[in-house]
Amino acid sequence: MAAPARQRGPALGRGGRGGAARPLAGVALGAGTVIASGTVRGGDLLDQILALDPGARGIRAFARPGAAAAAARALRGARRVLLATGFTVAPGMPETDGPPGAAVLGRALRRLGARVRWVTDPASAPLVEAALDVLGEPPDVVVYPEGGGGAAALLAAERPTHLVAIERPGRTRAGDYLSARGESVAALNAPVDELFVGNTGRRRPVTVGIGDGGNEIGMGNVRARLVRLNRLHARIASVVRVDHLVVAGVSNWGGYGVVAALARLTGQDLLHTAALDRRMVEACVAAGAHDGVTRRREPTVDALPLGAHAAVVELLRLAARSGMMGGR
Amino acid sequence: MAAPARQRGPALGRGGRGGAARPLAGVALGAGTVIASGTVRGGDLLDQILALDPGARGIRAFARPGAAAAAARALRGARRVLLATGFTVAPGMPETDGPPGAAVLGRALRRLGARVRWVTDPASAPLVEAALDVLGEPPDVVVYPEGGGGAAALLAAERPTHLVAIERPGRTRAGDYLSARGESVAALNAPVDELFVGNTGRRRPVTVGIGDGGNEIGMGNVRARLVRLNRLHARIASVVRVDHLVVAGVSNWGGYGVVAALARLTGQDLLHTAALDRRMVEACVAAGAHDGVTRRREPTVDALPLGAHAAVVELLRLAARSGMMGGR
Repeated sequence: MAAPARQRGPALGRGGRGGAARPLAGVALGAGTVIASGTVRGGDLLDQILALDPGARGIRAFARPGAAAAAARALRGARRVLLATGFTVAPGMPETDGPPGAAVLGRALRRLGARVRWVTDPASAPLVEAALDVLGEPPDVVVYPEGGGGAAALLAAERPTHLVAIERPGRTRAGDYLSARGESVAALNAPVDELFVGNTGRRRPVTVGIGDGGNEIGMGNVRARLVRLNRLHARIASVVRVDHLVVAGVSNWGGYGVVAALARLTGQDLLHTAALDRRMVEACVAAGAHDGVTRRREPTVDALPLGAHAAVVELLRLAARSGMMGGR
Repeated sequence: MAAPARQRGPALGRGGRGGAARPLAGVALGAGTVIASGTVRGGDLLDQILALDPGARGIRAFARPGAAAAAARALRGARRVLLATGFTVAPGMPETDGPPGAAVLGRALRRLGARVRWVTDPASAPLVEAALDVLGEPPDVVVYPEGGGGAAALLAAERPTHLVAIERPGRTRAGDYLSARGESVAALNAPVDELFVGNTGRRRPVTVGIGDGGNEIGMGNVRARLVRLNRLHARIASVVRVDHLVVAGVSNWGGYGVVAALARLTGQDLLHTAALDRRMVEACVAAGAHDGVTRRREPTVDALPLGAHAAVVELLRLAARSGMMGGR
């Protein structure tokens, strides 16, 4: 385009406030340089990255621009966070998607002052711990209580101000939990979504759901659109609603996207690096994780190689900076 | 999402032909795995990547899904290609955007059997040669002839079947050549667009234009939309039309995107790697290139660090594979 960046924003009528720019360490741009982040529908690089749909799942039918930013605003001041994740797709096969995103988002919220605990099944607990270990975070992982009354007990003990789910099965209208293939996984995944559906009190926690398939906690918000997409989606679609739903091509990316939005909001370097992303997925596999799509025990997520996820992290780091430098 | 990939395509009603899959070396997916590439508007990962708009230029207003695929179909059988590139933004400042994209696209066309020559100004010739050298390609670079009649002489000598421009200034309605800042760069860039505008004969070459700003060869196709975007775009918009226009967030990415589409079409591994991308940009800077936005002599393109471009290359490699595996 061959224009000085400082003229680019204003020229497009989306002027950034250069004075508000707080560049991260290592930013390649010069002083006064503004890469304005658009505010028109679909005009924000962060939303564009989250709308990348490598699995051709049609996520644009149920993704919404601005969702990650809205979730970040809701989470910014969180005091006590319970972060639910873990999806077991077949016996002994907890998947690689979810724990890395939950680890990175939890670390960011911790850095912003929240007390964070992760909630999952016994099968996925080692995965979450492995991802946290790569990040150097303490493994505050709670296994969801067996038997009835688990949600009430957990809510009473933890008193969360915010509940977050990443790639966590959500019940269907029929009360089952289905994989994207349409098979019941109810016997393999605890009803952690009770935390969200039973949650109707006056001082109830703020809820955030992050998913990529339609069958996760939070997809109740867009169930009507999922039902129209096709018969399989109509069957697997979860009814569990949240205050803020974030949809991405891969659920981990959705978690990273919320962290990128938090980085913009706070001016802090909260997102992990591409190198740490590779190490987290490898550590999850060493701890027993399988790819949820190929069902192989190898370091891929939703059948995508590590390089693809590292690339998305790299672009999200750029989006986090560009939004900050645009003075949002 | 937790579904086997082979069921994903059909479930979304976009079934790939698994039998047509020709995976590249290093693909992480298993036999029979299909990541279907969507055919709905905006549903193709390749188009989604090219629509990433890190500079918030509003390129979605003038980008069109399917454009890279259409350009690839037009170029697949090319016999003799002239590839114009090079944008000098200020005296002694040829920019980093353009030559890498032209080098990668030219290499791909050469591998598919075409004779390829690059056309540019004296200032950008060392950049194109440096990028080609990194790729191990012979430096068949032609400097556009000075004085009048350059286009006719070049067309007679080269007899191109296809003309391609990447990030090459195109004249405005007033006959000037303007930077995205709105300054005239007519004195710094030869009127290479004569190749395209004077090109009205019966056996005229097929023309392809790749750009990101509105002021390049090919943007005549979307001039009406550029004029509506804002006053600056209305002023800088080029009138030079092409048979196939490809718009991307960065012009190099547009060139890479056409190569990804050629890889899908032919089943060949035609795109370069992220590592080569870094080396090409660094080699261009060593040869005298400046960033067209920051105007610094440093290895960035449009103010974006090398990691961002490497990430896009990584994702485009994924898109090239996914389309092939979807059996398009």
